Amino acid sequence: MTFKMTIAYDGTDYHGWQIQPNGVSFQSLIEDALHTITQEKIKIVGAGRTDAGVHALGQVAHFHSSKELSLPRLQHSLNGILPKAIRILNLEEVDDSFHAQYSAISKIYRYHLYLKKEMNPFKRLYVWHIPYTFDEQKLHTASRFFLGTHDFTSFANEAHAGVAAHDPVRNLSRIDIVPEEGGLYIEFEGDGFLYKMVRNIVGVLVECATGKRAPEEIPSILAAKDRRKAGLAAPPQGLFLVSIKYPNRSL
Amino acid sequence: MTFKMTIAYDGTDYHGWQIQPNGVSFQSLIEDALHTITQEKIKIVGAGRTDAGVHALGQVAHFHSSKELSLPRLQHSLNGILPKAIRILNLEEVDDSFHAQYSAISKIYRYHLYLKKEMNPFKRLYVWHIPYTFDEQKLHTASRFFLGTHDFTSFANEAHAGVAAHDPVRNLSRIDIVPEEGGLYIEFEGDGFLYKMVRNIVGVLVECATGKRAPEEIPSILAAKDRRKAGLAAPPQGLFLVSIKYPNRSL
Repeated sequence: MTFKMTIAYDGTDYHGWQIQPNGVSFQSLIEDALHTITQEKIKIVGAGRTDAGVHALGQVAHFHSSKELSLPRLQHSLNGILPKAIRILNLEEVDDSFHAQYSAISKIYRYHLYLKKEMNPFKRLYVWHIPYTFDEQKLHTASRFFLGTHDFTSFANEAHAGVAAHDPVRNLSRIDIVPEEGGLYIEFEGDGFLYKMVRNIVGVLVECATGKRAPEEIPSILAAKDRRKAGLAAPPQGLFLVSIKYPNRSL
Repeated sequence: MTFKMTIAYDGTDYHGWQIQPNGVSFQSLIEDALHTITQEKIKIVGAGRTDAGVHALGQVAHFHSSKELSLPRLQHSLNGILPKAIRILNLEEVDDSFHAQYSAISKIYRYHLYLKKEMNPFKRLYVWHIPYTFDEQKLHTASRFFLGTHDFTSFANEAHAGVAAHDPVRNLSRIDIVPEEGGLYIEFEGDGFLYKMVRNIVGVLVECATGKRAPEEIPSILAAKDRRKAGLAAPPQGLFLVSIKYPNRSL
């Protein structure tokens, strides 16, 4: 049987989603907890990797088990074992064809910017603080250039040394800029995201909003297909994986 | 000259406001930073002590200095030295008669309760999680008994071993219950608060809302003037010192 779990986590003190040789990942925490409870070696597959310091409101993962599992009890036991920085929000049986990553039709990420001069101490682990002159109109103008289907090579880091993405073309269907207390967040919806793509795009958007770069440069950065043409990645703590959308039948 | 500072801090990793023999307090952090910048030994006086794990949105403190201080520059330097968990939000010169604690006409505290079954990992350090049946009407009924002027001995811990408050009579002028995502917060305004008074009141309010105690018992608990008659204190992480009110002239 195949099971789908929806997971929220605070990435502050962990080494990201994916199992790492050094440092505790959310994937390994959940797999260890599943092993403790079921005595089965269960491998879980996440919809999206998130790096160290990146957060999730609705990460999705799937796993297989041959056992008859009582899902409410399993969810309760998992949350009892897992650190409070991670919570299993939902657990359900799905069709065997379901795959957390390949079945996804879109993913939604949010990046939070805090724009006041003095930082709010309660936001310090969840935003990027930009205490400089910030032009929201330029942010908006710049963001429009990323909409649609592009080769995002200039905005993708290599996930492993020397290994670029096989297919660097992605479609960003939506980029919303939403005001919130002390700043704003930028919400991205797309059919997929390359490694560090959101943080690299936000890095350039912030360069545009703070006057370090003209929004009109973005098409040529995209066309160059060269990571060195774009700026530095935005720091991890402002980024949240919000949710993953699937076709209705697998929900 | 006398100066007033307004301070926000995340109490999670610190040992409260007041200087402690072991553990880092916010008072000592600020005094050390003032000493580094001004080379003066400056003692600061806070409006309210907050315990380890308790947070502040608008703590107020005053201090004296014989130096001519450039306030915007001092604030900037302090925030540069201080950990990001604490921010000086405002710094101004005030009348020499100003005293952060004695000039206060009221203090406002908030206590956050999270009532959903599964905890939100981003709230775990800032709420008390009550995943049980919770009767908001009983919470409201119970809260009304605390309004007004009472001897709060039953709701006060001894600040130092064997030393009870000199005058345990306080006036609570306002108790609001405000819904928020996943739960609610209870906001208290009063002319002063005894040691652990808010957390002890919240402990009994939650006992009433979860059916462990009848709201109608509260008058007899107050009348007993005996700490043992009330319940356990609510945990520290749900409590926020919101703001301190002063007469207009000293603002």
